[in-house]
Amino acid sequence: MTYPFLHSTWYAAALPEEISRTPLRRVFLDEPVVLYRRQTGEPVALSDICPHRFAPLSKGKLIGDGIKCPYHGLEFDSGGRCLHNPNGNGVVPPGAALRAYALAEKYGMVWIWMGKASEADPDRIPDFSFFGTRYRAFGGCQHVKANYELLNDNILDGGAHIDFIHAGLKPEGEYTRHSEFRREGDTIHSDGWWLGAKLMPFMRALWPDVETGDIYNFVRWDAPSVVLVDAGLKVPGATLADPPLGPAAHFYTPETATTTHYLWLVSRRAELNDDKLDEFVRSAGNQAFEMEDRPIIEAQQTNMVGRDFAAMRPVSFSSDGAALLARRILARKIAEEQSRPQDALARSSAA
Amino acid sequence: MTYPFLHSTWYAAALPEEISRTPLRRVFLDEPVVLYRRQTGEPVALSDICPHRFAPLSKGKLIGDGIKCPYHGLEFDSGGRCLHNPNGNGVVPPGAALRAYALAEKYGMVWIWMGKASEADPDRIPDFSFFGTRYRAFGGCQHVKANYELLNDNILDGGAHIDFIHAGLKPEGEYTRHSEFRREGDTIHSDGWWLGAKLMPFMRALWPDVETGDIYNFVRWDAPSVVLVDAGLKVPGATLADPPLGPAAHFYTPETATTTHYLWLVSRRAELNDDKLDEFVRSAGNQAFEMEDRPIIEAQQTNMVGRDFAAMRPVSFSSDGAALLARRILARKIAEEQSRPQDALARSSAA
Amino acid sequence: MTYPFLHSTWYAAALPEEISRTPLRRVFLDEPVVLYRRQTGEPVALSDICPHRFAPLSKGKLIGDGIKCPYHGLEFDSGGRCLHNPNGNGVVPPGAALRAYALAEKYGMVWIWMGKASEADPDRIPDFSFFGTRYRAFGGCQHVKANYELLNDNILDGGAHIDFIHAGLKPEGEYTRHSEFRREGDTIHSDGWWLGAKLMPFMRALWPDVETGDIYNFVRWDAPSVVLVDAGLKVPGATLADPPLGPAAHFYTPETATTTHYLWLVSRRAELNDDKLDEFVRSAGNQAFEMEDRPIIEAQQTNMVGRDFAAMRPVSFSSDGAALLARRILARKIAEEQSRPQDALARSSAA
Repeated sequence: MTYPFLHSTWYAAALPEEISRTPLRRVFLDEPVVLYRRQTGEPVALSDICPHRFAPLSKGKLIGDGIKCPYHGLEFDSGGRCLHNPNGNGVVPPGAALRAYALAEKYGMVWIWMGKASEADPDRIPDFSFFGTRYRAFGGCQHVKANYELLNDNILDGGAHIDFIHAGLKPEGEYTRHSEFRREGDTIHSDGWWLGAKLMPFMRALWPDVETGDIYNFVRWDAPSVVLVDAGLKVPGATLADPPLGPAAHFYTPETATTTHYLWLVSRRAELNDDKLDEFVRSAGNQAFEMEDRPIIEAQQTNMVGRDFAAMRPVSFSSDGAALLARRILARKIAEEQSRPQDALARSSAA
Repeated sequence: MTYPFLHSTWYAAALPEEISRTPLRRVFLDEPVVLYRRQTGEPVALSDICPHRFAPLSKGKLIGDGIKCPYHGLEFDSGGRCLHNPNGNGVVPPGAALRAYALAEKYGMVWIWMGKASEADPDRIPDFSFFGTRYRAFGGCQHVKANYELLNDNILDGGAHIDFIHAGLKPEGEYTRHSEFRREGDTIHSDGWWLGAKLMPFMRALWPDVETGDIYNFVRWDAPSVVLVDAGLKVPGATLADPPLGPAAHFYTPETATTTHYLWLVSRRAELNDDKLDEFVRSAGNQAFEMEDRPIIEAQQTNMVGRDFAAMRPVSFSSDGAALLARRILARKIAEEQSRPQDALARSSAA
Repeated sequence: MTYPFLHSTWYAAALPEEISRTPLRRVFLDEPVVLYRRQTGEPVALSDICPHRFAPLSKGKLIGDGIKCPYHGLEFDSGGRCLHNPNGNGVVPPGAALRAYALAEKYGMVWIWMGKASEADPDRIPDFSFFGTRYRAFGGCQHVKANYELLNDNILDGGAHIDFIHAGLKPEGEYTRHSEFRREGDTIHSDGWWLGAKLMPFMRALWPDVETGDIYNFVRWDAPSVVLVDAGLKVPGATLADPPLGPAAHFYTPETATTTHYLWLVSRRAELNDDKLDEFVRSAGNQAFEMEDRPIIEAQQTNMVGRDFAAMRPVSFSSDGAALLARRILARKIAEEQSRPQDALARSSAA
């Protein structure tokens, strides 16, 4: 209940197509939230706990831009204000409001700000501007039984786990592995290289004319768990055709201390209207995550049995630098937030 | 384990037909109890934990009016005294007794007193005397994943939730809603009215000649969770035929802090020997509870995540008076019980 | 997590045929362990928590006599030393080791020592030398949702529970029950007798010519939960043919505070190469445990609701002497272990 999450930050909340005129309940950072769209299409996020008797609004009905509690008919507007109390003398008590969360629909994703809505600035969402422009993105949302930082660790290991658990994503033959990371402000760039590698079937399908090259996997991480992955191929001295696939994004949004909403986007060039390619990319991603990452990551959580990372006394390597830096940046931001004079976590009704 | 329940009071334990010569285990207020009948038919309630090695007596066999532990054959009489120890030197140690709970079979229900058996007085069971006389009652027992006070709240809202979640029980057309409650000692009467209402199909089936009238829903509550509901129709200036349906009773017996045995009785006029009517009433009740009340009430409990009512800081309305009064009466009775010089909760063997 | 188990002792870990070149995960005393065999066949037990990021080695692959972590490819030898780190600069940090547990394959069972490996002496395993010599043993491993001491209690009651829950193992007609126990060091012998008893069908099948005799059930217990049962028949003044069945062994190895690996061996004379007899013995044992013991023992645990034995304030009889003595011996050994200046529970890498 009091797990130290970072609140004053943007989390991926849902794919745009998940939010509609049918209310959707989703728990973020242990807080139940109802998501739906206004009649104009703008997304809304309100506490999914009615302040009267705690019924979930998500089981209620939309009334115009607002929502009606299924239990006693309280009607709230999209800012969380109670506009109508059909009970008793009809008085709306001062506290009868739902916390309203700031949302932003940007880069093919709906983002939620879990801190004070008045501090939410969509410009602080890391840049994913190629999605929805040059590239057509499509995505998914999967539920993972593990703490979200284990997923940060996974993506920030310089591609190391690819060599061991993702057979289909690993180059063939001999190659030179290189990885490095650098920090820009609180952004981490973690680059993995397979130099002079023979292309695996996955890449050969994208560049049929190329046999070997320098395969890269560039990861950009921002706190708390917002990740861009740009994977591709360079052939020294050659100019390759633009790859049909563009970058991918991975967002690890905490549900609870031990469960995570894993939202992702993959992309291909917008002009390639190729359902087969979409399906190929989707199923390759699914194979990698469902069959390869998930069993290990959930087993890590099982082995932790409620202990946190430090209590496990982990041994680390030079290749863990990026992942450990992410943990440090995140810990610092959480400590800063918790020491702020104004409690950023205070329940606030609509502005 | 130490949830503050009220012990010195009557709870509905089981329908008469649930208790037989086959032992039945049921947990009340976190205490496992075995229920069965003596050869004469009188019901018995004993602790379902053998004092020797904690085996459940309910897996054992009845020996005359007593019960034999399945594990090492200790035989207890229906008062919980150990009469025979077939082990070792056969000595029965002083503590080898099962707590015996007082029961009363009354008004078509078997009641259990969870406090000191010597203080149990069946006259303190609220009056449900029409059941089994003018009216024929039949009932059910359902398991609910919610604290029993959420069920008290539900029934004591002056019919408010009927307007929102029970479409089939709500009058049609225009009407005037009125609700009020009054206190008589520790009994609460909460009356809901739909004045000048057009009858819903449910009521039209009972009074085919009536189009509109004043529909009422009278609730009588006694601590801890013993409820009579008398719902019906008045037509000003007219004398209606006796309704085929009589009152209903709802009993919310805590199993644990977050689960409840919901026992209920519905009734129809005894002379109407109409299986179809029984079936109609049973299925309407089932629809109302299973499809409409249960999802909301269990979702309230989910949203509470182990917090209690006060910790949720609920906002209340004038229409919540009866439900809040019930919570106050119950809290006062629990506080009184816990401050009694003699511990009413003390384990006691048979008198 | 901090349940006071005895660590410096031998526990049955697995049947020999359960350990192979496919890694097996099994949790003992709340510690995840991976079991496999070296190429020469010797069994290996290592911590199933990679010191790097806690992935389970049991999902990895065997490399020669060692094992490779599935997540980042760390390779450990069969002593738990990390021999190869394919990540980053390849340095193996000092702490990058898996705790190695001492094993012994003896008497048809693989045993694990949960304390310091350097103190493990296979001579301290209680004698089960007839298994695999004069008698052919076969066994099983079953998971029980109960604390292992409830299983000790079960076997050490002088056969008392046989009279009540094992109808098929109980003699017929009139007989005289006698039971006694004695202590030799920390070994307990608990003998049960059914004197002058009419053989039950089970025994009549083994000694077709005998009608009545003195049936015995001799139990030898060693801490923490290592049990030999020798059951048979004596006919005063007669010399019986060697019974076709030999002794049985029961090992209750804690998984957690409330769950147990129940490993067992039954035996028959080696020269009787009779699959039907094996099947008969196996199914009789299965009936006794699965249908008769397990429901009671798991129900005991349910009735304890997280409380320990003493908190249940059990009433005991003269016939509980052996079981209570076992609890006392075990408690003394645990207290001794916890007061040792050197922490026997300290994580230790390979010697």
